[in-house]
Amino acid sequence: MSDERDSAAAPTLAAVDTVITGARVLASTTRPAPDYPSLPAADTAARGVVTFLADHAVGISAGEVVWVIPSAAVPSELLAAATVIDGRGQVAMPGLMNSHTHSPMSMFRGAAEDVTTADWFNKYMWPMEMNITDRDVYLGAQLAIGEMLLAGVTTFADHYWATAQIARAVEESGARAQLASTFFSSNGEAGLRSSAEFAEEWNGAAGGRITTALGPHATYTVTDADLEATADMARRLGVPIHIHASENSQQTESSLEKRGITPIQVLHDTEILDAGTIIAHGTGIIESDLEWLVPYADRVAVACCTKTYMKNAHSSTPVRMLHDAGITVGLGTDGPASHNTLDMLESMKMLSLKQKDVELDSTWMTSAHALDLATRQSAALLGLDGKVGAIVPGMRADIILIDTSLPHYQPLHDVAAALVLSARAGDVRTVLVDGRVVVRDGRLTMLDLSEAIAELNRRIPELTDTSHGTMQEYAP
Amino acid sequence: MSDERDSAAAPTLAAVDTVITGARVLASTTRPAPDYPSLPAADTAARGVVTFLADHAVGISAGEVVWVIPSAAVPSELLAAATVIDGRGQVAMPGLMNSHTHSPMSMFRGAAEDVTTADWFNKYMWPMEMNITDRDVYLGAQLAIGEMLLAGVTTFADHYWATAQIARAVEESGARAQLASTFFSSNGEAGLRSSAEFAEEWNGAAGGRITTALGPHATYTVTDADLEATADMARRLGVPIHIHASENSQQTESSLEKRGITPIQVLHDTEILDAGTIIAHGTGIIESDLEWLVPYADRVAVACCTKTYMKNAHSSTPVRMLHDAGITVGLGTDGPASHNTLDMLESMKMLSLKQKDVELDSTWMTSAHALDLATRQSAALLGLDGKVGAIVPGMRADIILIDTSLPHYQPLHDVAAALVLSARAGDVRTVLVDGRVVVRDGRLTMLDLSEAIAELNRRIPELTDTSHGTMQEYAP
Repeated sequence: MSDERDSAAAPTLAAVDTVITGARVLASTTRPAPDYPSLPAADTAARGVVTFLADHAVGISAGEVVWVIPSAAVPSELLAAATVIDGRGQVAMPGLMNSHTHSPMSMFRGAAEDVTTADWFNKYMWPMEMNITDRDVYLGAQLAIGEMLLAGVTTFADHYWATAQIARAVEESGARAQLASTFFSSNGEAGLRSSAEFAEEWNGAAGGRITTALGPHATYTVTDADLEATADMARRLGVPIHIHASENSQQTESSLEKRGITPIQVLHDTEILDAGTIIAHGTGIIESDLEWLVPYADRVAVACCTKTYMKNAHSSTPVRMLHDAGITVGLGTDGPASHNTLDMLESMKMLSLKQKDVELDSTWMTSAHALDLATRQSAALLGLDGKVGAIVPGMRADIILIDTSLPHYQPLHDVAAALVLSARAGDVRTVLVDGRVVVRDGRLTMLDLSEAIAELNRRIPELTDTSHGTMQEYAP
Repeated sequence: MSDERDSAAAPTLAAVDTVITGARVLASTTRPAPDYPSLPAADTAARGVVTFLADHAVGISAGEVVWVIPSAAVPSELLAAATVIDGRGQVAMPGLMNSHTHSPMSMFRGAAEDVTTADWFNKYMWPMEMNITDRDVYLGAQLAIGEMLLAGVTTFADHYWATAQIARAVEESGARAQLASTFFSSNGEAGLRSSAEFAEEWNGAAGGRITTALGPHATYTVTDADLEATADMARRLGVPIHIHASENSQQTESSLEKRGITPIQVLHDTEILDAGTIIAHGTGIIESDLEWLVPYADRVAVACCTKTYMKNAHSSTPVRMLHDAGITVGLGTDGPASHNTLDMLESMKMLSLKQKDVELDSTWMTSAHALDLATRQSAALLGLDGKVGAIVPGMRADIILIDTSLPHYQPLHDVAAALVLSARAGDVRTVLVDGRVVVRDGRLTMLDLSEAIAELNRRIPELTDTSHGTMQEYAP
């Protein structure tokens, strides 16, 4: 069959600048899997599907996937004219996407451990964040982006201050990002205004690799009036919103007690949902919230960061309930000050394990399903569906290669399970964003992190000084 | 001060064959930490302690740690006469220990995914295990040991069949292991007899790196009479017992229903506890079981394999209850057919996160405490306390070096948190067992896994043939 394809396909195959050859290609999580026998066809609807194409080649031209065909069907003259990436022994899969983080908080990784959520904000993070400079944000973002690219994370949705510094780091690194400039109502009118100015100025920057969103912090730090103004602004600018809401059950209970409505209804009533939004966390989402969410399922998604919830004893995003209601759930890491890493393979594994655990059902959240959240659904959350999240012709070439020949994958009974339950970030060998190689042989090609690492370590005493107290209090 | 030390210590410093220099040494989890400021002294009793010694050197002679001193205090003539391992930018910590696994089941990694516990046994594992040959066991053990050494796991407690094959793989690999030969009462008298013969023959083999235990499978597959005979045999041979018990709540409930007593009381009544035992899993241990366990706290320990419990929706070992009662808890991975990996850094991370999650207390199970379970307590579980589990003079030199200069550890606010929440197995650069380098620059020095990997992949069709059905049924 590959012979037939060879002779039939060769004459019309478009020339490309880059070819990945010999890889097992995770092409898509929406099609049945020809070489993935462990999922009976009848089960696939409930259990997720995933297409792995053995020994395939991916042709890339000007940053776009042009064809995905058996390696043997690629004409040698076409290979001779392209940069060839040897994918043997590796899985080529869509670049991972971090649906929610605060990348510059890498500077606070490990600076507030084993504390309550209230102490984390009031005694550590908010006082410490008063110390940071624009340069700290730039270096923190650079360090975070380097860590993410090395781990195969090609895109991230960020929510922080001094966002122009983050944008600069994104631009230089070759990564893709959706950036939101955070504001509180305590910032006054300047808050929304600067978030909107950033969103307008930077949307589409870095050759389209940067998109933007508005960044109201949370339903408990931004007033309803400001949320309404945010929804208006988002519609005017044509950008989505990215906001923390129902981060834990306590917030939901507190909102019900104080206001008689849940944080999700606040998002509904202020038209944040109607304008289109990423809801960060949502572990406190309750069944009655579906009434508000479901009508906006085409433009509302929830970012789930399991490791942070376990570490902070916040239970888990109700992924099964949201799944059954048709709500998109993307995967994220939260900031590295709470999550300690920016590793989406870890995030996917934690999702899979925690979902089985919390649902008391070891047959739920199959590895194929977890891969769907990590690829297709995370892309949809970011507004990048049809652009990234699969390796099919017409998509941008955000592709990573994972070395599955290593002992901890072997023997390879089940590729989906191997990616979800065995893969480690350090197994990522090659990373392409927009067709450009940003990690080669496990090393960054466009970033040198040595300065950021040295300088942030030197800054630890100043960064962690909390003697001046905090400007606000976490009391949702 | 290092100058004083230098001149004072140099004349009496023993010559050594190997020196690790410039490392941050995790020496012990039972002493306060001079350079670890994030734990207030008053908190250490409840929150665990850990000693990190910055820029220290470890001198090793004939496989034993001889001294641990500041790097600057090591005389140059002593360095010139030794093999020097450059530990700069790295943490040197005690080799990790896997308190419970079935190493040859690496051959079934990923072969039974997303199924119930009963299906896992009855439809997959027990039928598939009827296909395995001695050679499969040897290759599976070899692959598992290679994976473990690369991940910094220097010792493992194994529970399987064809144990002589595993012993051979251990001997060749340089690893340390406690091996138990599994038996069911359905094997008749031959079961205990062959487990005892193995234990007697191999105890102390491989230059003392192999110790043994008796391996009754579980309280639901071995009769009380056979358990009593096992306890007698263990006392006669001077070896401990390693057994599955209270693996999940369902087993406890079922035992109470059928017999009126818990599996832990079965272990008490049959004198398994008195003889000294590793209890695998124990997620179904209930408060009243403490009555049986506490009197034997000096010789009974529980092996906790969190990832397996999450994957199988088995909740978690009640680590806090056991801790408060003074029962030792070691960490393990269970077999790679249920856990998918043999990665103890992952096991330690999962423990930390799941403990905070299940106790709804983000201040519980600090990273220092998790490190204590992974080192001192796991060594005690294996009967190797005073021998491994710390880097102090007189201990065997089972030491690993982890590269904490990588981006995902930086900046380094908290070394304990970095090891528990950021470290990945692939960051392990060097591994010593008994002072011998078994992993150098992230590569195995004594094992070549290529044959095992190729042959086990070829064997997949035969290994996974379940058409012949099973010899027994999981119905605890």
